Parts: sequence; C-alpha cells; structure tokens
Amino acid sequence: MKEAIRIIGIDPGLRRTGWGIIETLGNSLRFVASGTILSDAKLDLASRLCQLHDGLAGIIHGQMPHEAAVEHTFVNKDATATLKLGQARGIALLVPALAGLPVAEYAPNAVKKAVIGVGHGEKKQIHMMVKVLMPKATFDTDDAADALAVAICHAHHRQSAIGRIAIERKLAAQL
Amino acid sequence: MKEAIRIIGIDPGLRRTGWGIIETLGNSLRFVASGTILSDAKLDLASRLCQLHDGLAGIIHGQMPHEAAVEHTFVNKDATATLKLGQARGIALLVPALAGLPVAEYAPNAVKKAVIGVGHGEKKQIHMMVKVLMPKATFDTDDAADALAVAICHAHHRQSAIGRIAIERKLAAQL
Repeated sequence: MKEAIRIIGIDPGLRRTGWGIIETLGNSLRFVASGTILSDAKLDLASRLCQLHDGLAGIIHGQMPHEAAVEHTFVNKDATATLKLGQARGIALLVPALAGLPVAEYAPNAVKKAVIGVGHGEKKQIHMMVKVLMPKATFDTDDAADALAVAICHAHHRQSAIGRIAIERKLAAQL
Repeated sequence: MKEAIRIIGIDPGLRRTGWGIIETLGNSLRFVASGTILSDAKLDLASRLCQLHDGLAGIIHGQMPHEAAVEHTFVNKDATATLKLGQARGIALLVPALAGLPVAEYAPNAVKKAVIGVGHGEKKQIHMMVKVLMPKATFDTDDAADALAVAICHAHHRQSAIGRIAIERKLAAQL
C-alpha cells in the first residue's frame, strides 16, 4: 500500500511567514494544519530571522513533513522590500533543507494554475478553492492560506520537481 | 585586564560569501583568519543555502567570535539579483544570531569610511588599507577582504551598535 506524502507549503515574509501542511495520496488531498509565524518588528533583523527559523524548525520537527514547497514571490516594489523578502525567503528555504527535506519552488502563476485552474486570479479565489479542495482546511491569515495553496501546487507537480532536485544533487556530487 | 573582542565580518553572496575574523583590544587590531565559502551553482537553491549555512556555522564553531558584522549591500541590479543576495544575506545574519552573537549591520559607505577615512573609494583602496591596518592580513578573494573591512568597521562602531541591539532586545522582551 502506498503511503501518504506529507507536504509543508511556505509563503515567506519577514513580518509574517505562512505555513500549511497537507497530505497527498494518489489524487486525494487532506488538510493537516496551518498557521502563521510572526517576527517582532521592534527587534534587530538577525533576531527576527531567528524567530522565523525557530518557528519553522519547531513546526517541521513537530509535523514531520516529507517534502517542502516555497512560493517564489516576485516583488515589484523597491530594492529594500525585495531584499527584506529575500532574507525571509532564505530562511524558508534553509530550514526544511537542513532537516533533509527536498525543497521545491513555485512561481505564483503555477500556484494559481494548480489551485484555480488558470494562471491568474485574485487572492479570494485562491482561498475559496483551497476550501473547495480541502473542506476541512482552516487558516488564520492570508499567508497561511497561500502556504496551503503552495502545498497543493506541489502535490500536483511533486514527482517532476523531486526528480529534478535529485538529478541536480547527483550531478553536483559527481563533479 | 580587558580581554580582546573577537569579531567575524561577513560579506554575503549566494555564489561566494567572504568572512574575516579579527581581534580588537583598545585601539589595536589583530588579523586572525579569513576565507571564502562557495556554493555550488549546479545545486538547487535550498541546497546552496545549506552550504553557506554549514560553512559559516563551522567557522563560528571553530573560531568562536564574540560579535558579528554583516555588510548591508545595496544592489542596483534587477529584482532577481536583489532577491538572490537577500537569500544569502538571510543566512549570513541568521547563523551568528543562532550561535548567540549580536549581529550588527553596516552600509558600504560606513565600511569605506572606517577603513579608508572617506565614504567613497575603490575596492583596491579598501584592500590596501586592510593590509596597512593589519599587515599580517591575508585574503584569498575580494569577498574575504571586504569581510575583513566590515569587521574593522565594527571594531570602530561596536560599542554603539551592540548597545542599540541590547536596548532593542530588552524593549521587545518587555512588551
């Protein structure tokens, strides 16, 4: 019997990082948990990144996902905002990788396509479809809902994404 | 007798992260070590960030610095380059903070002013002045030399920077 694959989806942000855990078995999806990790804006940047690290590490330790997926957010704002997002994103990619999980990245359009069937659409539509696909899903913030959508996207694409990461690691080890 | 403070300076980058360790006691500076951590461009991003993490964690574990300083690089390139730098920078800030070190940040102009006396100047001038200030200093790459310059900058400004971080942490803990 095939075992369910447990996926953590992450929507990174310096102030709020959303996370969502689902299980996939064949074509079925099951909601497990979701939430939001906050960092304290009154703290220095390094301490805030520690808060994101500790929060994510605690969830991965407690929920034991097999694979991770992180949204590849593009920002059209100024360089300072992009740098901030990049720093939070670095932590979101690092923590599951340190725990030995393969980490796939998905562009927002891919996430939208996986959840609502087309590569564009509003936040509300994504959240509604997350509830349609997993009626038991709950989320405390938009970021947690987005993280669940990233996890659903990975459930659709995981076999090719995981295969690609494995090949890259194998090639790098040989050279 | 006052003890020397050991500082790690870090010049973050996804492909190459430079690091430099110095000791400061009163007005004197002493070179300890420097080097460059490389990430493998053939690997997936999460694995590359792990390589930066493991390299930096190993150096901090081995060299036991008391304080860290990271260059606050601004990039004028495209958003993709800024996001990449941000991700590497997130790791450079996180690793010393996880080890319990206070982590100060310095803008490139502050680093130049600390090392060559003015807020502008070429890379070559910075590297020459690092050698003038610490004749025994060696560096394998420009990034390692820049990291030593950041460490020197922190040696000049550490008392106010460390005080600010301590106050922020205290205030955040009270609220």
